[in-house]
Amino acid sequence: MRPVCVLGLGLIGGSVLKAATRAGRDAFGATTEPVSDPRVEPSVAAALERAAATDALIVVAVPLPAVEDVLREVAAHAPDCLLTDVVSVKQPVADAVARRLPDTRYAGGHPMAGKSASGWAAATETLFDGAAWVVTTDEDTPQDAWRAAVELALACGAHVVPTTTREHDAAVARISHLPHILAAVLASTGADGGSLALALAAGSFRDGTRVMSTRPELVLAMCEGNRGPLLEAVDEALGRLGAARGALASTGGLAATVRAGHEGRQALEDLRNADQEEIPIDLTDPEAFETLRDLGTAGGRVLRVEGDTAIGALPA
Amino acid sequence: MRPVCVLGLGLIGGSVLKAATRAGRDAFGATTEPVSDPRVEPSVAAALERAAATDALIVVAVPLPAVEDVLREVAAHAPDCLLTDVVSVKQPVADAVARRLPDTRYAGGHPMAGKSASGWAAATETLFDGAAWVVTTDEDTPQDAWRAAVELALACGAHVVPTTTREHDAAVARISHLPHILAAVLASTGADGGSLALALAAGSFRDGTRVMSTRPELVLAMCEGNRGPLLEAVDEALGRLGAARGALASTGGLAATVRAGHEGRQALEDLRNADQEEIPIDLTDPEAFETLRDLGTAGGRVLRVEGDTAIGALPA
Repeated sequence: MRPVCVLGLGLIGGSVLKAATRAGRDAFGATTEPVSDPRVEPSVAAALERAAATDALIVVAVPLPAVEDVLREVAAHAPDCLLTDVVSVKQPVADAVARRLPDTRYAGGHPMAGKSASGWAAATETLFDGAAWVVTTDEDTPQDAWRAAVELALACGAHVVPTTTREHDAAVARISHLPHILAAVLASTGADGGSLALALAAGSFRDGTRVMSTRPELVLAMCEGNRGPLLEAVDEALGRLGAARGALASTGGLAATVRAGHEGRQALEDLRNADQEEIPIDLTDPEAFETLRDLGTAGGRVLRVEGDTAIGALPA
Repeated sequence: MRPVCVLGLGLIGGSVLKAATRAGRDAFGATTEPVSDPRVEPSVAAALERAAATDALIVVAVPLPAVEDVLREVAAHAPDCLLTDVVSVKQPVADAVARRLPDTRYAGGHPMAGKSASGWAAATETLFDGAAWVVTTDEDTPQDAWRAAVELALACGAHVVPTTTREHDAAVARISHLPHILAAVLASTGADGGSLALALAAGSFRDGTRVMSTRPELVLAMCEGNRGPLLEAVDEALGRLGAARGALASTGGLAATVRAGHEGRQALEDLRNADQEEIPIDLTDPEAFETLRDLGTAGGRVLRVEGDTAIGALPA
């Protein structure tokens, strides 16, 4: 099994290292934090030299603003290794890879797991168990990089959601970045109510603001890095909130807003509770990526790979 | 100890009945649900006749749209009993009491606890343990009704937050009703992203939409009943979301939004973790209600009542 070299060992990168180790992979990496662990090399350059020597899969796990610098080091020390990443936005990483490493075989990745604590100490080998992990499946994604990224995700306990770079970024704008913006708006509007309001805050406010415990710079890197798709999602939310405002001011009725919200939440629960149909996808078929993208669009996942066959689960 | 008559035995009313029983109070009530329990009288009229005969404290625990009908029954059967309620908005209830029962001694109540399940079966005697429970403390609130409402809240395991009707409604608009509106906006914007988006939804989306699992009619009764204050909170949220949109579109920077949100959430955690100073408040003092309101404004609570002294906890 191919070794795994993780660059950046915060919550996500650290958890990749620990989960890959759990799966029996030879996993090592580097970080700017002072971490004392036999798997941690003294520098990014040292980790990359080991990666080049062992033909490791390189996993970029730094926040988006630091990606370009790390890729420059990859270009210097290990340009021939297969490459993936676990950064929360995919187009800017793909663009940076195209600029810095035009010949490197790369497939983007994004595990949909997290918690508000950050750093190596918060990282766990179980963070990705049962989680969705996007592997970008574009027309021009190289098969070998794709296979390596998928195998890493599955080894870490996740299921793989295949989709395009563009569709990934549009989806996470809605279900990951917009929630952070709305949580910020809610937290500041609530706090403006003073100590009385905060003393009365119960579940709805605590749940709705929980992600604002995360370090602001991590939230900023994620949201600002997905500017275009996030702008579309924020505009849709503004339209919906403005409609609620208008209805409240004119008729006093919020039924359209609340019923649409209830249906949206119900759709989430229905998808989670749906019966799953297992479907085999032949990875040697020239149409395989198209079939995989359709699986992702339908809310499905790849559960495992057996030889040249990906086993998908499709919600009924 | 005065008996307790609870009208409406859903999640909140049912939990009041069960918690009051746990505290050794003689507690009974009525509901439109078919509930088989020795404490449940066959009709509201029967419960109210028992309340009149035993000088019970009457607790109105129906959704806001049903309050007026219940008060009409109270006027017919037990107009001399002390009255409180556990409805989530206070001005409309106070207005209805003033119309239907102008001579009844009334203090409003609102326990800040809940869960997405509803109905008698979901009700538990522990629901209010450690929760904040507002008792309205207006200039004209009668002392005896106030004391009865406070003693019920404390008996149910809650702490009492004393504040005015107006300040209560403004505060809950921000920390309870606005979270529901934003959760509705988030759930529908997320679901608009289709199955792919929902399949990628992780903690931030699940937390931010959780309250949308609640039955829509309960959310509507609560939010629509607090129209004026909620409109102000929604306008503030619209302003903040519009500012985030403008910043994202112009400079791409979201630092002001995210940092304010982080500080708001931090203020919530700081208040919860603050050291508490116990202060005695003499309830026979003519300024007692003013002192109690100041305690509420500062984020404090009444922990217990000893004779004529309320023991408050003030965050340092």
